[in-house]
Amino acid sequence: MENIKTRGYTATDESGKLSPFEFERRPVGDDDILIDIKFASICHSDIHQEKGHWGKQIYPQVPGHEIVGIVSAVGKNVTKFKVGDRAGVGCMVDSCMECESCTHGEEQFCERGQTKFTYGFPNPAEPTGITQGGYSDKIVVRDHFAVHIPESISFEEAAPLLCAGITTYSPLMKANFKSGDKVGVAGIGGLGHLAVKIAVSKGAEVYAFTTTADKVEDIKSWGVKEVIVVDEEYKSMQAYGKTLDYMICTIPYQFNVTPYIMCVKPYGSFTLVGMPIKSEININNLMLSFARVNFNASLIGGIPETQEVIHYCAANGIRPSIEIISAEEINEAWGKVVNKEARYRYVIDAATF
Amino acid sequence: MENIKTRGYTATDESGKLSPFEFERRPVGDDDILIDIKFASICHSDIHQEKGHWGKQIYPQVPGHEIVGIVSAVGKNVTKFKVGDRAGVGCMVDSCMECESCTHGEEQFCERGQTKFTYGFPNPAEPTGITQGGYSDKIVVRDHFAVHIPESISFEEAAPLLCAGITTYSPLMKANFKSGDKVGVAGIGGLGHLAVKIAVSKGAEVYAFTTTADKVEDIKSWGVKEVIVVDEEYKSMQAYGKTLDYMICTIPYQFNVTPYIMCVKPYGSFTLVGMPIKSEININNLMLSFARVNFNASLIGGIPETQEVIHYCAANGIRPSIEIISAEEINEAWGKVVNKEARYRYVIDAATF
Repeated sequence: MENIKTRGYTATDESGKLSPFEFERRPVGDDDILIDIKFASICHSDIHQEKGHWGKQIYPQVPGHEIVGIVSAVGKNVTKFKVGDRAGVGCMVDSCMECESCTHGEEQFCERGQTKFTYGFPNPAEPTGITQGGYSDKIVVRDHFAVHIPESISFEEAAPLLCAGITTYSPLMKANFKSGDKVGVAGIGGLGHLAVKIAVSKGAEVYAFTTTADKVEDIKSWGVKEVIVVDEEYKSMQAYGKTLDYMICTIPYQFNVTPYIMCVKPYGSFTLVGMPIKSEININNLMLSFARVNFNASLIGGIPETQEVIHYCAANGIRPSIEIISAEEINEAWGKVVNKEARYRYVIDAATF
Repeated sequence: MENIKTRGYTATDESGKLSPFEFERRPVGDDDILIDIKFASICHSDIHQEKGHWGKQIYPQVPGHEIVGIVSAVGKNVTKFKVGDRAGVGCMVDSCMECESCTHGEEQFCERGQTKFTYGFPNPAEPTGITQGGYSDKIVVRDHFAVHIPESISFEEAAPLLCAGITTYSPLMKANFKSGDKVGVAGIGGLGHLAVKIAVSKGAEVYAFTTTADKVEDIKSWGVKEVIVVDEEYKSMQAYGKTLDYMICTIPYQFNVTPYIMCVKPYGSFTLVGMPIKSEININNLMLSFARVNFNASLIGGIPETQEVIHYCAANGIRPSIEIISAEEINEAWGKVVNKEARYRYVIDAATF
């Protein structure tokens, strides 16, 4: 069994600058599949992690956890995929598969702590010693952690569903809102724009909160009830106090969460899926008590639900708004993501690695 | 109508030192009652507020919001009380009484922002310009905001129920736990020790978390299932990961909330009733997502529920563990509360003002 020669783009330090990289992946094991990657999209998490915002990293490290392509080899035990299948990989590539969480579709919460995230995670089986992500032309992954991509959705439009889609779909489904309920979405970037489209599709009356005025027309075209452009003093939000049945917030930096929480009805819920630097979020407990809101966080979603969101979006016409770029445009694209200039997901053409 | 001459103990600055004080309260209005105070107990909130931990204060300011005594005068519209009744006053003394919250027993969340808290709150009707609290021998209060104290409980044992009792009872009741459910209580001081007693009485299997080893025997005597002495590295808590159906936390300072949250079962709830300095609490959003726990806060409770907790405790033998002190011992007692030396509530004999 031979290592898999791979080309990709890697971070080499906390600078946030990527460069071309040739490396090897582990051989295709009995339970593995090899995917020839077609597209990989850019998530703000890629930037946070490579810059060390969530903790020290091992480099060189290839980011990317929104990955789609065609299966080009399968291990002898694999029945889930055959060569030629369209497949996707999201934020994780392995777990114990035996514990309560893993056997109940929450592999990201493996009770034994054996969830392996898609890049930067120690893995002695990999020639580089860590998992390496999707900004590359091939990936080897345990079959369970890949999902099927139906023919009814293009590769490039499916890619963002593997993280942005599932990360917003999972808490939206848990929120269990009814048709006509008022759902707030705060932060209209890669995740937020999919949250809007999914919530609209599920029958919610959606209120979108953005700090970027020139996104308003885009957002309206997705069927929201209202777009609120958030000003520095949060004055535009005051009229929405206690109006929402539920709110999902995708803002990936520290921010003043209180004005957002105050928009939710008493005894409603608020989910933060953005992961700020150091994952720290400061809450004013007095204001939270006045709001009477349940604050929670959500981390991606399990494999069965990841498959579900892809089928749901494929079947219901939910498509991310994307811009296809080549590998050499990645660094520029990262800068635009940080500067809120992405509209709304950059998708890298893997043929350019 | 004459102002009511009152003796009490007041803060004059942020030093946290109180001194004797003679002042006047407003005359007894048509909807007011006058209470000859018998006892007032010491809440950690008194200390936080007078030290300016929650924001700048107006001085002189008399703290105290756990107040019991005998009605000595009533206004002409008052039907709820008559002279000679036993009455108690908690954390608030007025609100609009007309909005959705006020008419639904949540006067602390008055939609018009007209909740008047018991001390330090601007009130032009008061000769000192602010509400003045219970470390004093008399109080004038709108009848609705006083509750009845049944004969079956002593004044001194009833006093702590007016804040510590209702503040823990209200979220415990909302948690809606079943008999035999595992309920955690963190921080076993004035509030926490009542949370333990109430939860035990309501049939919970109670797990008490304290940093003070010499409280263990006391806590066991209240019928808990287990006492966990929390060490600096939280090692003693690890065995309790994901075991609790619900947790209430009364710790009144900034602390590492993650190890506590991790003790709650996925999709369970965690309520913080402690109000740290500036009311700020730092949450690790990544750990919260792993925990899958709903984090919320709770602020005292409304007047109907305050009456309910007093009747419940009176009827079910729930009594705070108290130590009666004289007015001149207040400063020493405040020091002991901060140093975790209170066992478990200091109650001031108002005859000593």
